[in-house]
Amino acid sequence: MDVLYLEDIKVGQTFRTGSHLLTEDEIKAFARDYDPQPFHTDPEAAKHSFFGGLAASGWHTAAVSMRLQVESGPPLAGGMIGASVELTWPRPTRPGDEIHVASEVTAVTPSRSKPDRGFITLRSETRNQRGDVVQLQVSKLLVWRRKAP
Amino acid sequence: MDVLYLEDIKVGQTFRTGSHLLTEDEIKAFARDYDPQPFHTDPEAAKHSFFGGLAASGWHTAAVSMRLQVESGPPLAGGMIGASVELTWPRPTRPGDEIHVASEVTAVTPSRSKPDRGFITLRSETRNQRGDVVQLQVSKLLVWRRKAP
Repeated sequence: MDVLYLEDIKVGQTFRTGSHLLTEDEIKAFARDYDPQPFHTDPEAAKHSFFGGLAASGWHTAAVSMRLQVESGPPLAGGMIGASVELTWPRPTRPGDEIHVASEVTAVTPSRSKPDRGFITLRSETRNQRGDVVQLQVSKLLVWRRKAP
Repeated sequence: MDVLYLEDIKVGQTFRTGSHLLTEDEIKAFARDYDPQPFHTDPEAAKHSFFGGLAASGWHTAAVSMRLQVESGPPLAGGMIGASVELTWPRPTRPGDEIHVASEVTAVTPSRSKPDRGFITLRSETRNQRGDVVQLQVSKLLVWRRKAP
């Protein structure tokens, strides 16, 4: 797909990434580096926690979702540059889950002050192999215009 | 500090974590794994990008902020369990930045349906060594009550 400028993007447009299998080792390694809590690092301790078993850090789910978007999401000209993000994690991501990201454009807004750019709002669901949503993300992204109007 | 239950937390309470120095190697390594875009992985290409130089992935800033919170933020009983998060990145995080997180409790809300828990809203600024805010995060966190009322 060619790269996309603001003029190429319409409300309702959808994108779907490839998928990534999250292993227990990967979940524990990310958590050791960035979210060292027993329910993310220790399967036995996790059984007795809120999560009832080992769960990926929400930040790990977010980071893998970002990689999937960069590799096979909307090919924005100049890259994916987030201005703001809202995140919820309706369900835990578990070892063995194969996740992908499905996104829909919900707003396209030219900048009022800068004629070379605008913003899009992207509503992205990270789903596991059963179609369960493990992360809902609403992102406001900077997108360049093909040329100034 | 003893662990904190919902009863121990008041609106206006503040917390400040230790700090972490972000190196260029660490920025590039995180980006290769989770946000492989030239402005996060290649200092030369980054000069000609929106960021005008190498910048950490926002997800890297978020992940390091999480580790700082887990290690030296509010010691919540049962750990830090996020229900939802809003994030913005007012400025890039650069190689050599030493960042910490300063947080304030802005709401404390017992659950209506579950007497063993509640939620707090935490407004957290990740700041660099000059005091500039590189990430603003508003998190809704699950917090356990010491005992059912």
